[in-house]
Amino acid sequence: MAPILLNHMGSEENEYINEQVQVKNPNLDTMEEDILYHFSLSTKTHNLPEMFGDIKFVCVGGSANRMKAFAQFIHQELKLPGNPGDIKDICEGTDRYCMYKVGPVLSISHGMGVPSISIMLHELIKLLHHAQCRDVVLFRLGTSGGVGLAPGTVVITEKAVDYSFRPQFEQVVLGKVITRNTELDEGVANELLQCSSELQTFPTVIGNTMCTHDFYEGQGRLDGALCSFSQEEKLEYLRKAYEAGVRNIEMESTVFAAMCRVCGLKGAVVCVALLNRFEGDQITSSHDVLVEYQQRPQILVAHFIKKRLGYII
Amino acid sequence: MAPILLNHMGSEENEYINEQVQVKNPNLDTMEEDILYHFSLSTKTHNLPEMFGDIKFVCVGGSANRMKAFAQFIHQELKLPGNPGDIKDICEGTDRYCMYKVGPVLSISHGMGVPSISIMLHELIKLLHHAQCRDVVLFRLGTSGGVGLAPGTVVITEKAVDYSFRPQFEQVVLGKVITRNTELDEGVANELLQCSSELQTFPTVIGNTMCTHDFYEGQGRLDGALCSFSQEEKLEYLRKAYEAGVRNIEMESTVFAAMCRVCGLKGAVVCVALLNRFEGDQITSSHDVLVEYQQRPQILVAHFIKKRLGYII
Repeated sequence: MAPILLNHMGSEENEYINEQVQVKNPNLDTMEEDILYHFSLSTKTHNLPEMFGDIKFVCVGGSANRMKAFAQFIHQELKLPGNPGDIKDICEGTDRYCMYKVGPVLSISHGMGVPSISIMLHELIKLLHHAQCRDVVLFRLGTSGGVGLAPGTVVITEKAVDYSFRPQFEQVVLGKVITRNTELDEGVANELLQCSSELQTFPTVIGNTMCTHDFYEGQGRLDGALCSFSQEEKLEYLRKAYEAGVRNIEMESTVFAAMCRVCGLKGAVVCVALLNRFEGDQITSSHDVLVEYQQRPQILVAHFIKKRLGYII
Repeated sequence: MAPILLNHMGSEENEYINEQVQVKNPNLDTMEEDILYHFSLSTKTHNLPEMFGDIKFVCVGGSANRMKAFAQFIHQELKLPGNPGDIKDICEGTDRYCMYKVGPVLSISHGMGVPSISIMLHELIKLLHHAQCRDVVLFRLGTSGGVGLAPGTVVITEKAVDYSFRPQFEQVVLGKVITRNTELDEGVANELLQCSSELQTFPTVIGNTMCTHDFYEGQGRLDGALCSFSQEEKLEYLRKAYEAGVRNIEMESTVFAAMCRVCGLKGAVVCVALLNRFEGDQITSSHDVLVEYQQRPQILVAHFIKKRLGYII
């Protein structure tokens, strides 16, 4: 790797100004048009303030089908007029991501892995900026491998950590590596834990989430096309992760946390554990069980949104 | 980063045994079932040798729509019986990837970025192994940013290089970073260049391809949500890339090349440049022009396949 430089993005730390979404790029204000290429939207062809100005909650997740299901679910939960089945994909001009708007909630898919969610986050943050959105909370709703947790447990991320359990994200900028802080908003995490204790329908914990850049070797799986380590070495790595406070492993949380911090967005990562990695690598639960598990982060975040909007007192 | 260790995956170098697809994991042969989770396929529920045993060409690309279009195109080009519109997604049980089989050709989407294509490649290589496929050639058909090339130029990758222009891929295994070689098959690249000179319909070059882990800061774009560098610094980085032989930038080639080498698969990366990055960052060409550009790698690889199958002498 290139030498790690101190981050020169300016005052990223604790700059949670709960106001307009901040981009950190002076060039944007001088551009005649901004094409959000992977959303198939543009400041010239779309009236972004009119389309998105009232957004207060953005929920993102890997799978397009799951984020469509979440949009329909939150439509029902908020008792909005119209048929949830009629919700349209705003990004229908592209198949890179899908996006649904339901009242003050935006539901977007981001694919798998840091690069895929990173493209989406750049364009989302620019979208929220162009639309002059204020006081936005961002959630990642995902699936993950549990570390010492029963399958079905929901993990609210305290810190997103890298493969060495450090709360940082390494970003390459013009061939140099800079590091960014990946701590998430403590207040939102605690509010989500409170929601879970009110719901009392599934186990929920706050813990660290390890973010890796692949699903097999990086997560210590023994069942990939490539595997050069033993079962014992795998378990030793998972034990070290557990001791460092890691409770689940997924593939997007570090860049999500880092970009939320830099841009002054309150962010939370809420992932269900599909299996306990101490007990295996393959996801063997039935389709129906997995579908139910995947609804848990959605139920939790929907409860949070309903409370914030005053539907639940 | 953790210390970079020498790769201990064994004899990866130049082990192009043009025979059965090799996995590098002794555990696989002892597993009662192998669930290819992100394909929604399994060795127990599907007869993989029967379904895939005759595959000789695997074509992968980021976009699901584009890989469906490629499947329909190659169906027409190979003059196979049946209606190209009837081709079914083999992975319809999941929305992570889509997969189409057309005679000896498999067309699969991989999403955006190294982690996303890496999951797909692990499961694809296991699939080809379980199906006892032999003499398979693997192509990535993609889009990219050109470095000093006119938009529409097709780049056949000689070496996939990282952000420092090194022909290597860094893989984390149980918290340690190992590096893998990313040189692609010279013979297939030259055969593709020969195909292009026979077609004479668009400019094609052989050059190095830089693979980054994001679309904005890592590629030196001035139009992301975050940007801490000047136009001049951006151009200097692109000039250095050009001097190192880089002719285009995309987000998947290093892991593609590395995994092909380790598993003894002949692989090629064929990407069209949608713009010249010395002239801008935003993709401003019209929809129709972009669609035509995106067909160019497909046309080139279809010609290669038809020649190999004896359709063109």
